[in-house]
Amino acid sequence: MMRKRKSMFVVVIDVSVAGFYKGRPSKGDDMTTARFIYDKSENNADLFYATKFDAPDAYAYVEYRKKTYVLVSDLELDRARGAAQVSHVIPLRTYREKLAKTKKDVVLVDLFHAFFAELGVRTIVVPPSTPFSLVDALRKKKIRVESGGSPFFPARVQKTKQEWQTMINCQKAVFGAVKLTEETLRKSNIRGNRIWYRGAVLTSERLRSMVNVHLLEHGYMAKSPPIISSGVQACDPHEDGTGPLLPNTSIIVDIFPQSLATRFHGDATRTFCKGRASDALKKLYATVLKGQELGIKMVKAGVHGNKIHNAIHALFEKEGYKTGEIKGRMQGFFHGTGHSIGLEIHEEPARINASDYRLQAGNVMSVEPGLYYPEIGGVRIEDLVYVTKTGCEVLGRYPKKLEIR
Amino acid sequence: MMRKRKSMFVVVIDVSVAGFYKGRPSKGDDMTTARFIYDKSENNADLFYATKFDAPDAYAYVEYRKKTYVLVSDLELDRARGAAQVSHVIPLRTYREKLAKTKKDVVLVDLFHAFFAELGVRTIVVPPSTPFSLVDALRKKKIRVESGGSPFFPARVQKTKQEWQTMINCQKAVFGAVKLTEETLRKSNIRGNRIWYRGAVLTSERLRSMVNVHLLEHGYMAKSPPIISSGVQACDPHEDGTGPLLPNTSIIVDIFPQSLATRFHGDATRTFCKGRASDALKKLYATVLKGQELGIKMVKAGVHGNKIHNAIHALFEKEGYKTGEIKGRMQGFFHGTGHSIGLEIHEEPARINASDYRLQAGNVMSVEPGLYYPEIGGVRIEDLVYVTKTGCEVLGRYPKKLEIR
Repeated sequence: MMRKRKSMFVVVIDVSVAGFYKGRPSKGDDMTTARFIYDKSENNADLFYATKFDAPDAYAYVEYRKKTYVLVSDLELDRARGAAQVSHVIPLRTYREKLAKTKKDVVLVDLFHAFFAELGVRTIVVPPSTPFSLVDALRKKKIRVESGGSPFFPARVQKTKQEWQTMINCQKAVFGAVKLTEETLRKSNIRGNRIWYRGAVLTSERLRSMVNVHLLEHGYMAKSPPIISSGVQACDPHEDGTGPLLPNTSIIVDIFPQSLATRFHGDATRTFCKGRASDALKKLYATVLKGQELGIKMVKAGVHGNKIHNAIHALFEKEGYKTGEIKGRMQGFFHGTGHSIGLEIHEEPARINASDYRLQAGNVMSVEPGLYYPEIGGVRIEDLVYVTKTGCEVLGRYPKKLEIR
Repeated sequence: MMRKRKSMFVVVIDVSVAGFYKGRPSKGDDMTTARFIYDKSENNADLFYATKFDAPDAYAYVEYRKKTYVLVSDLELDRARGAAQVSHVIPLRTYREKLAKTKKDVVLVDLFHAFFAELGVRTIVVPPSTPFSLVDALRKKKIRVESGGSPFFPARVQKTKQEWQTMINCQKAVFGAVKLTEETLRKSNIRGNRIWYRGAVLTSERLRSMVNVHLLEHGYMAKSPPIISSGVQACDPHEDGTGPLLPNTSIIVDIFPQSLATRFHGDATRTFCKGRASDALKKLYATVLKGQELGIKMVKAGVHGNKIHNAIHALFEKEGYKTGEIKGRMQGFFHGTGHSIGLEIHEEPARINASDYRLQAGNVMSVEPGLYYPEIGGVRIEDLVYVTKTGCEVLGRYPKKLEIR
């Protein structure tokens, strides 16, 4: 999907939290430095990645001298002992009881401080998203706090074979939902400027709801709604789509849910046209498809993302499709070609766009060029690829065909 | 619902982010102080509350000398101008273009700094959850950063009449889903130690999926899955429920989705028993119901939450239901009676529990006592109430009846 990060768009500045931090991320590899996360696992992919332990409440993770710890309340203790993939599960109560003997109003930061003191930790490296109220409180306790990178575990952007398999399953679920949209459009009828399905006008909202329900029934949740937009709306990649889907225009279907079981994401886009596509739209579609094929062909470990992105740009230009502001709005190919995906829908720092990222074996990237002209329509085609030393493997298959009669 | 905050449980320490901040929250009311939020509206209820503007990407909100601003990228500009309920919509580009003349590598913090300099802002008050990497970068620019409270806008816990109406609609949707579970159980048959529905065993997962789909079809999303748990599982309020639902045991159904349109939440719990309830379970149910009725009767602006909570506790004790660790697990009434609810499922600081919160007119609170004994079963009954000067109004109605034959 192509919607939720400004950094996908070449026209805007980097506003990711990681972007605030300009130095080289701390590695925390000396004898008094630990790595530390305190968050809810549902909000923090790094925490879940490190522990594989999901708890409704926030808990702490510590990595220090090759050992890993989670610090949890009694409520989580039994489940943490069973599920958390760490060397030690520490009940916070231990420190609370110790401190309560000499101190009134013991708060969480006191417990962390006591734990660090016991271990000999003086510096902690934390994710850049860590709340400043927590960091300020730790610093008051004379603990040095430095910022790690984003992702906190760089290995996350290089998927294992098992993770790759997991993501193939995610992608199958996505294509199941894409198929639902295609079949619904096929079973629909055009009357005037509307598409009718089972006795009612088919709207973006209605088809989106069908997709959401389908995904949920298959164990996937669309935290962000799928993009199902037609006509001029399809020319704004930020637009989810509202109101009646229009026949004889391009309909962009971009679906990117998360598996409730594994927490990995799938992500794919197809562009359809219910009815007859104009020659201009057909040519636009063929060009985007050619661009995507070129992109997939170029993907390989060691290749720079911007080289691929620029090649697609050049191809589009050569075919006569210019990018830039026309009549007060951006037209052409004005977003990035691809992003890394896994436990998060967009993972830093791997990108196939104007930035200088060198692809690594194990990256799972989207390849999703698009062209958008309000007078013709919007077209985007997206697949995920697994980067290898010799090229890449596309995750799952789904036909790429514009017209649905 | 009763699951996602430790602070609901009297046995644990406060681990909310707000808890790190011990001083009185800054108000930012002098001539050089602004209030500032930078986040995604989907993650930050305060930001959405202030602007009513939903954007996929993070944006900034500033409140300074009775004026309000949002600072957005060009991609959000048109929609912000239409939707954001602020005095000024500022394109970040303006500052970017200015700074680019004299500075290389302009980052977001530079833009904020330039904006603050122009206004004369020297101190900003931000939510305690603000990333420390952003705060560190602002402090390097000699901007003083202080922590506001949680919620950032205290008015959020006092609902307007319109918000109250909105939440009545949320609660109707919740009761629609509760009804679905009750009717499904009614249409089911007991065979041995299983409940059968339409040719297959009814599990927690299956009924939960039916509820999720129902909610989605009605414009509500269960970000956290409903709790549907039976037997001994129902005695752990942290347990979502897995596997076959058991007949002749209590089944807790706790549903707390968010409206996709308004972003407000509903939240209700009913306890059912498919088949025959033991006399002990019937008595437990009657006692929890009596406790809930007592709680609802006591709720009134000016009353302290802990007084209500303690009264329910005392009633349960009087009826012979003790609370504490028995055979290595917590039993009895070991969570709080209620929490504030609105744009977030649990809103600080309003609570009906051991803490000393004085109820205010306009609070929307849950009243959800429960009793949990593995040898009898778990029972919880929950409604939402709107606090008034003379008492409270219950939001929506749904029967409270244990047995389903």
